[in-house]
Amino acid sequence: MRVLGVDPGLTRCGLGVVEGSPGRPLTLVAVDVVRTSADADLGERLLSIEQRVDEWLRSHAPDTLAVERVFSQHNVRTVMGTAQASGVAALVAARRGVPVVTHTPSEVKAAVSGNGTADKAQVAAMVTRLLRLDARPKPADASDALALAICQVWRGAADQRLRAAAAAGGRPR
Amino acid sequence: MRVLGVDPGLTRCGLGVVEGSPGRPLTLVAVDVVRTSADADLGERLLSIEQRVDEWLRSHAPDTLAVERVFSQHNVRTVMGTAQASGVAALVAARRGVPVVTHTPSEVKAAVSGNGTADKAQVAAMVTRLLRLDARPKPADASDALALAICQVWRGAADQRLRAAAAAGGRPR
Repeated sequence: MRVLGVDPGLTRCGLGVVEGSPGRPLTLVAVDVVRTSADADLGERLLSIEQRVDEWLRSHAPDTLAVERVFSQHNVRTVMGTAQASGVAALVAARRGVPVVTHTPSEVKAAVSGNGTADKAQVAAMVTRLLRLDARPKPADASDALALAICQVWRGAADQRLRAAAAAGGRPR
Repeated sequence: MRVLGVDPGLTRCGLGVVEGSPGRPLTLVAVDVVRTSADADLGERLLSIEQRVDEWLRSHAPDTLAVERVFSQHNVRTVMGTAQASGVAALVAARRGVPVVTHTPSEVKAAVSGNGTADKAQVAAMVTRLLRLDARPKPADASDALALAICQVWRGAADQRLRAAAAAGGRPR
C-alpha cells in the first residue's frame, strides 16, 4: 500500500509518500514541503498547492491520500488556511479518483509512537526510526506528513480486514 | 461591474451574480444554491462545488468573485466545511484569472442595510428591494451570496477610486 500524507497549511504544506504493509518495514518514497508566500493572493496560494499535490498524485500514484483532520486551534486565521489547504488536497484527490481519509493529530501520534499526546520531537524521532532515515525530516511539516502516511498504512490495512470480515458475513474477532 | 458572490458552505453554497455601479440601479443576473450530500465524501462534495463555480465563472464572466471571509463560529465542523468551500471558490477563480475579494459578514450587512449587526431577515429584505425582486431569494444562502455581490459592487468601485487617486499622486479626499 502506498499512501500520500498531507499536513495541510498555506505557508507550509507537508507532503510525504510512504509504502508498506503492517508487520513489514516501511519505505520512504518521497517527502517535500510546498511553501507559498503570505504576500500572494489566497487563490494563487491554493493554486500552487493544488498543482503540487496533483503532480505528486500523478508521479507517485498513491492508493490513498491521508490528510490531517483539522480542529479548532488558537489562531483562527491559521485554522482557516489549514482547512482551505486540506480542502484543496481532498478536491484534487477526488478528481483523480484517489480515496481520501482523515486522521486526527492524536490518532497519528498514537499510531506512530503509541502515545496520543506525544510531542512533535517524539513523533519525528519515531518517523525517522520507522523509515530508517539518517536524520529527522525537516521541517516539522514534512515529518508530520510522513507520520500521517504511516498511520494510514497501518490503520488502512486494519480497516480493510474489518470490511472483508463484514463482507464475509462474519464479525471481526 | 459584474460580481459573483459566494456564500460558502458544503451543504449549501450560495451563488449570486449582480451587475451594477454605485448610484445606479443594480441588476440580478443569476442566483442559485449548490447543494451537496452530507453522505458524500469530502472530496466529492468539493468537486461538485468546484464544477458549479467554474461553470458560473465561464457563463457569467464576472469581473470579481466576492466570498465571505470565514471566522470562527460555534460549530467547528461547520466552520471547516465553510473554509474548505471558500478555498475551492478562491482556487477556481485564481485559475481563471478572476480577482478574489473577501468581505466579513458585518461589512456585508453594513453595505446593504447600513447596519453591521443587521439580522438575516433585514439583509434579505434589503437585497430584495435593491434588486427590485418580487420575493425574497431563498434559501438564506442565496440571499447572502447576492448581498456579498452587492457589497463588492459598491465597495469595489470605492476601492478603485482610491487606487486611481493614489496612482495619480494625490490623496483621496
